[in-house]
Amino acid sequence: MSGAPCVFCRIVEGTEPSQPVYEDAHTIAFLNVAQATKGHTLVVPRRHHRDLTEIPPEEAAHVMRATVEVAGRLTRALRAPGINLWHASGETAWQSVFHFHIHVVPRYATADLTPPWTEYALPLASLRGLAEEIRSGA
Amino acid sequence: MSGAPCVFCRIVEGTEPSQPVYEDAHTIAFLNVAQATKGHTLVVPRRHHRDLTEIPPEEAAHVMRATVEVAGRLTRALRAPGINLWHASGETAWQSVFHFHIHVVPRYATADLTPPWTEYALPLASLRGLAEEIRSGA
Repeated sequence: MSGAPCVFCRIVEGTEPSQPVYEDAHTIAFLNVAQATKGHTLVVPRRHHRDLTEIPPEEAAHVMRATVEVAGRLTRALRAPGINLWHASGETAWQSVFHFHIHVVPRYATADLTPPWTEYALPLASLRGLAEEIRSGA
Repeated sequence: MSGAPCVFCRIVEGTEPSQPVYEDAHTIAFLNVAQATKGHTLVVPRRHHRDLTEIPPEEAAHVMRATVEVAGRLTRALRAPGINLWHASGETAWQSVFHFHIHVVPRYATADLTPPWTEYALPLASLRGLAEEIRSGA
């Protein structure tokens, strides 16, 4: 077994076992060992990037193309009527493996996950100053 | 006001008001009127695609490149230490606006959202048959 310190890098190089469902030149997708629902898959770039603050946009684009393909396979093979995507960047956002990854979670019923937040609509005008603040981060 | 039936199409064409934080040739990003956390943003393609089962991979890739840029702006402008991405395809997965979109949710504390699932690790070998089933959906 190789000594790559990152478990997803070891899966990419084949020295850590996984159950792959898709791969291409830039990405690999494999079943998460914690199955939130049946078919819960992780899509990762072959190259190591920590999170959204470090991944080049082109690499993230590769991951997203693969994610569309994986979602199609899950829909066709498992007849899942819904799909959620989830991604975490940073410990504050519950990232636990620090190699960029997108969770693809097939949904079979509206009750098989828990909504991460409750929606309360705000007056749009109240958001004007916040939008200006974020645009200043360009 | 124009009559585009889709609210996100009306935001793209400028006939529905929004508070934009980013735009490029393919995408637009604007504050969600329901702010799960401060800076909660939606990234959408300018063209109308319903969900992951309909969007062309190249269009999804454009949305992801924009999402990396939006995440950077949120991190820099709001000093958010974490970011979550969330996407819903299908009513079963709680999609409510049927124009493809990715939620970008800045995180300031581990307790400001609710985890959508609880993780229980499974033996990897138990997932072999499921991986074969999903690969068959190619």
